[in-house]
Amino acid sequence: MLRIIHQQTEARTELQRICARTHDDQVFRKEATVREILQAVRRQGDTALLRYTADFDHQTLTADELRIRGSELDAAYQQVSRELLDAIRLACRNIEAFHRQRMPKSWVQFHDDNVVLGKRYTPVDRAGIYVPGGRAAYPSTVLMNAIPAQVAGVPRIVMVTPPGEHKSLNPAILVAAQEAGITEIYRIGGAQAIAALAYGTDTIPNVNVITGPGNIYVTLAKKLVYGIVGIDSLAGPSEVLIIADSTANPVHVATDLLAQAEHDPMAAAILITTDMALAETVAAQVAHQLRDHPRQTLTEKAIAHHGVAIVVESLEAAAELSNQFAPEHLELEVADPWQLLEHIRHAGAIFLGHHTPEAVGDYLAGPNHTLPTSGAARYASALGAETFMKHSSLIQYSPVALHKVAGAIDVLTQAEGLPSHGASVQRRTQPGSTD
Amino acid sequence: MLRIIHQQTEARTELQRICARTHDDQVFRKEATVREILQAVRRQGDTALLRYTADFDHQTLTADELRIRGSELDAAYQQVSRELLDAIRLACRNIEAFHRQRMPKSWVQFHDDNVVLGKRYTPVDRAGIYVPGGRAAYPSTVLMNAIPAQVAGVPRIVMVTPPGEHKSLNPAILVAAQEAGITEIYRIGGAQAIAALAYGTDTIPNVNVITGPGNIYVTLAKKLVYGIVGIDSLAGPSEVLIIADSTANPVHVATDLLAQAEHDPMAAAILITTDMALAETVAAQVAHQLRDHPRQTLTEKAIAHHGVAIVVESLEAAAELSNQFAPEHLELEVADPWQLLEHIRHAGAIFLGHHTPEAVGDYLAGPNHTLPTSGAARYASALGAETFMKHSSLIQYSPVALHKVAGAIDVLTQAEGLPSHGASVQRRTQPGSTD
Repeated sequence: MLRIIHQQTEARTELQRICARTHDDQVFRKEATVREILQAVRRQGDTALLRYTADFDHQTLTADELRIRGSELDAAYQQVSRELLDAIRLACRNIEAFHRQRMPKSWVQFHDDNVVLGKRYTPVDRAGIYVPGGRAAYPSTVLMNAIPAQVAGVPRIVMVTPPGEHKSLNPAILVAAQEAGITEIYRIGGAQAIAALAYGTDTIPNVNVITGPGNIYVTLAKKLVYGIVGIDSLAGPSEVLIIADSTANPVHVATDLLAQAEHDPMAAAILITTDMALAETVAAQVAHQLRDHPRQTLTEKAIAHHGVAIVVESLEAAAELSNQFAPEHLELEVADPWQLLEHIRHAGAIFLGHHTPEAVGDYLAGPNHTLPTSGAARYASALGAETFMKHSSLIQYSPVALHKVAGAIDVLTQAEGLPSHGASVQRRTQPGSTD
Repeated sequence: MLRIIHQQTEARTELQRICARTHDDQVFRKEATVREILQAVRRQGDTALLRYTADFDHQTLTADELRIRGSELDAAYQQVSRELLDAIRLACRNIEAFHRQRMPKSWVQFHDDNVVLGKRYTPVDRAGIYVPGGRAAYPSTVLMNAIPAQVAGVPRIVMVTPPGEHKSLNPAILVAAQEAGITEIYRIGGAQAIAALAYGTDTIPNVNVITGPGNIYVTLAKKLVYGIVGIDSLAGPSEVLIIADSTANPVHVATDLLAQAEHDPMAAAILITTDMALAETVAAQVAHQLRDHPRQTLTEKAIAHHGVAIVVESLEAAAELSNQFAPEHLELEVADPWQLLEHIRHAGAIFLGHHTPEAVGDYLAGPNHTLPTSGAARYASALGAETFMKHSSLIQYSPVALHKVAGAIDVLTQAEGLPSHGASVQRRTQPGSTD
């Protein structure tokens, strides 16, 4: 079921096909629907929001019911086990510690002639976090989005998540939110939730940055409101690429592939190995472990359509194929992963060695699990505190410093045909000369 | 002609109107055109590219003529003055020095139980820089985009710019490109150039990040290809907001407002002052300086439609209005700009004191002049070397470290219903137990 490919040209074509699995022209058609939802919420506010919640989530809410009440937040703690709470707290600590590393810091530098240059970092005023409902209602998603916003120092963080049956929300999500310090939570989802966060309604505040994963409608809505607000990224289905040599354990490799495939029928699970025998054993193991897998149908689909094992001549060749794919998650299950790392250019997160399954990073190692997908690792990075921050350049010139550059600026403004640009310097350096 | 407003509610409404001047529903209609151009270039490559260049730029090119030849690059140096070349070189040095400051650096940290965590920064493989033609063909644009890409270490940087009459390009642009180390330049512009950079054609390489300003078609094209490639930002028309107290020189303030307005009829020029007399003198000065302004018509339009002077009670009130507007450029022409800075939360670049006209930053102080517009400074920042870089998270666990977190991961995977995630840890920590 996990196909094995030896031929390099075929491997390249196959990787390109898998990488492009979401760049679908069909997506364009859904944009019309999403645009309509955005416009409706923008113009009618809560009214449209409640109507779409009735239509799509089949829950009839009043505006008063949108926000989760304090009693519901308290009650959630009664519905999660002590073990789960402890695990959430361990994850919180590690995620916070990692995200506090190398935070952007404001700075100024003093140059000759009293010139001061610098950058001043500040958090955004308000952030909105989208947490999917249903099958993909993950407490880890809450932590991976909320904690970086807290570390950035965002004064107001709101969370939205679609209501389930009887207007209910997943208690683990409510507990994770509170552990991350968030208590302003609204039970709305879909493109209408993104619209509310972008434009604001009577009930929902408009925010400056929206982060968090969602289905295709949520992703399209984020793309359309980008420019009005900032967004983290356009999340596609998840993917893992494993580079393994003969030192890898095929049972572990197979399980890691399935741990990706079990997310979603669109998930991708790719093995690139220098060891033909390993590829065969892994393929057999995947089939074996799929036999009584609790999420068999969707996991099988992912493996069948977006799973592949590629056999290559060398680890360098494996790295080059991986760079072309630019995977969200990259596992290096090889004897010397740090040496191989030197050949890797593009990957969202890299898991080194035989004892680092992706799940460690998904939950609690500390680095963010919100990562670039579908080849976006060629230019994009994990979500971080900086997703919720921005900087202002700082420039201060003195009279003598301005005088020294006046000639050069004059020449440049003439070349660009912008007379008042020139005059703004001349009038300061040659008083009375031009007025 | 520069209206003066005293009433705070009116001031807020007016600033909102000016800030939202580009969030126009009309823009949506142009998207259909842009989408068609993107699809055509994606499917037909150079053929479509040449057809659109004939249609929109009225230049009939062959594919061979797309790339600027070495002889044209050499010839450009003969067409610029020694003074302009020197000014470009001064700007290059300052821009490079500033962008080399606080570059993101790769790091790893060693934790207990041989856990290694870190971030590894790498440049993108290929970057594409868009430089507008016609009235807005600015050598400074070239430097402000190309130098950060060079500082980031991008191995291949290509530039595109639309051809003028007789297929010509502005020699100052060609010289600036070469001074910034770029020699791969193509004479294409508009949405078709963005399409070529995003998808690649036989002649133009596809890139990973596209930066640079352009007209509404270019901006829409960048928005539509975002996700296939990274982009710097969606640049709107330029804007300045000046906060001035009674220590400001009204002639300088007026010139600085006009230096913004002369860019574009859509440019915004806003003064917020605590001094009613200053507002009146500035308004009179603006009218006076406009009388024989070489770009009178468009500059007058900008001042009339997107210019305003607001009189407020205090500098704190001025700062709060400025924060709501989140200007691209903010000048603090007050007695103590560093004290006022403490009240500023959102601005692309801040020019402090009486001797720092925006033009200093536009050309050569060092910080980037590609800045967030239309309120985007609430969440976005100047273009920088990091625009052309990304990082990979690094995670390595040891057997003992994995063993210690196995229980917590197990609980979390159960809460999220992802069995293979759990198994990927169990199979490593409890060999033989589950297989």
